Amino acid sequence: MNSFTDNLRKIEPYVPGEQSKEKDIVKINANENPYPPSPKAVEALKSFNTDSLRFYPNANATVLKEALAEYYGVEVENVFVGNGSDDVLALAFQSFFCSDKPIVYPDITYSFYPVWCELFNIPFKTYPLDKDFRINVEDYREQNGGVVIPNPNAPTSLCEGEQFIRTLLSYNTDSVVIVDEAYVDFGGYSSVALTKEYENLLVCGTFSKSRSLAGMRIGFAIGSKTLISVLEAVKNSYNSYTVDSLSIAMGIASLEDDGYFKSTINKVIATRSRVTNELRALGFEVLDSSSNFILVTHSDYSMKEYFEFLKSKKVFIRYFSLPRIDKYVRITIGTDGEMDVFLAETKRFLEEK
Amino acid sequence: MNSFTDNLRKIEPYVPGEQSKEKDIVKINANENPYPPSPKAVEALKSFNTDSLRFYPNANATVLKEALAEYYGVEVENVFVGNGSDDVLALAFQSFFCSDKPIVYPDITYSFYPVWCELFNIPFKTYPLDKDFRINVEDYREQNGGVVIPNPNAPTSLCEGEQFIRTLLSYNTDSVVIVDEAYVDFGGYSSVALTKEYENLLVCGTFSKSRSLAGMRIGFAIGSKTLISVLEAVKNSYNSYTVDSLSIAMGIASLEDDGYFKSTINKVIATRSRVTNELRALGFEVLDSSSNFILVTHSDYSMKEYFEFLKSKKVFIRYFSLPRIDKYVRITIGTDGEMDVFLAETKRFLEEK
Repeated sequence: MNSFTDNLRKIEPYVPGEQSKEKDIVKINANENPYPPSPKAVEALKSFNTDSLRFYPNANATVLKEALAEYYGVEVENVFVGNGSDDVLALAFQSFFCSDKPIVYPDITYSFYPVWCELFNIPFKTYPLDKDFRINVEDYREQNGGVVIPNPNAPTSLCEGEQFIRTLLSYNTDSVVIVDEAYVDFGGYSSVALTKEYENLLVCGTFSKSRSLAGMRIGFAIGSKTLISVLEAVKNSYNSYTVDSLSIAMGIASLEDDGYFKSTINKVIATRSRVTNELRALGFEVLDSSSNFILVTHSDYSMKEYFEFLKSKKVFIRYFSLPRIDKYVRITIGTDGEMDVFLAETKRFLEEK
Repeated sequence: MNSFTDNLRKIEPYVPGEQSKEKDIVKINANENPYPPSPKAVEALKSFNTDSLRFYPNANATVLKEALAEYYGVEVENVFVGNGSDDVLALAFQSFFCSDKPIVYPDITYSFYPVWCELFNIPFKTYPLDKDFRINVEDYREQNGGVVIPNPNAPTSLCEGEQFIRTLLSYNTDSVVIVDEAYVDFGGYSSVALTKEYENLLVCGTFSKSRSLAGMRIGFAIGSKTLISVLEAVKNSYNSYTVDSLSIAMGIASLEDDGYFKSTINKVIATRSRVTNELRALGFEVLDSSSNFILVTHSDYSMKEYFEFLKSKKVFIRYFSLPRIDKYVRITIGTDGEMDVFLAETKRFLEEK
């Protein structure tokens, strides 16, 4: 009897979110952008010199880093890029959370944080959000092995401002603080400027939401040269070429098309505002979102039933069967047309139930 | 004084190989394919529905796995895909090498193996190649935490056959055996068929060499459902979406264009044969390559000087300043035109020195 299975990694399989293959659906369950990528990014793809794909990408993705550095007003040495922000965050966990003390994060937050802690054997401790789903910064005064918060938080959609982040940093000078800004472009406060003051602050971002490039896997981080150089060393010990040549080209083109970027952001924000108001008029409670999604509940209805009802009408939103948020649903902001279908089916749900 | 730096990962930065930005060079130093990707893969890129890039890729890259399963005559559950074969190998090290016993591999081999061992704290032990640069299978009888060999080996270019692999597997039933077949398509023996007999065998491959898609980052592995399911669990605990949507589409198109694939392979093999013969006629010793590169030495000349001379003539080959192979250079097989330039400069070197 073979025993090679004894030394295989024992790990609970993480199951990625449901992706329906059906057509003619309203897919507002994965926080994807309803608008296509920048036409300049598309042009970068169509005009790409495909013969050059036989070469490895530049291992440092230098040209993409340069474009990000210019965009954010930092130096190239302050920029890291990876294969989506999950890759960047996973590398950051490996790079910065090497203490025996537990890292800390909110109890309702991005579901991948505990998964990475298990994968890398990082001890962790969570602090509950308060009754309004806000992070209580006073919780984060204790000694810890590191701090990670998404800002805006997910799936709450709520964003903390500069004073909160400065207080958090003042309490945590001896560990690395990661602020995960996947959703910040939809009207949140960004801590990027604070990376010049706080050497232990890493800010992570992604091209998957606000830049409509989820399919291309581009994530990045901005921080001090100290932090970025450790991230680079760990990344280069894992996989030298994480960002492919087309992603580099499309990422740069997207950054160069700020007009398109701002116009799609503004459309999402306007639709969010309209949908929030309409849902509130229907008796829903809707948190004040700074993201491209809203967290919603209704005191008279089961949100699980609401989710199932919409699913039967081919409108896919997200329901979390988890403590504290099982009375809520998360709804990504789609196009106005998609949200009209969503609102019509929502009204039907309220009438029928 | 801040002490956050105390808990940063201490790791020796791995420096990826030199990539010259100069133009009009003969770049035969990175084992890249001299021919462009399949026209069908290029067409898949040009005709891609770019609007869909706003969506995340399929987390399981199912369609690419299906194409690989059909190509290799296995089931979809026997196939894993990743962001280049370095990603696949790094995940395999994390997934399968969890023993306290050292893993084992040859002392001259792919330079990333010790890097991953350091990153994941995996103990390791190496066995020297014999005087002809071959792997001695009898070395691999001892109890170990796992085995990894590239076949063909790099940078030796030498390939072992079925009997060698079967013997290796017969000695190692209690640990996972990884055969890294990055170069196998250039005339080597592939162990893929043996994965049906040996549940502890994982075979890794890449689209970067034989399929001219280094720029797109596509790697894969074939093995038993037991091994693949553990790899999937670890990968999904790290990053759900490692292979982007365009890589999936181009990978499938490349697999469907077997005529182009075979014709470029055959061209590389024919050029390799010609260059090998010409170098031998000039007094060089050239190992019998089953790869898209050759390992070369000459008893009368310093290979370091040869490397430097060619570099000054804008012909970039690879020299390793490492014990045992510092008397050799590694030369990637380019187009016939590139190899003519290389051979002309080689003759000039012999005349001038």
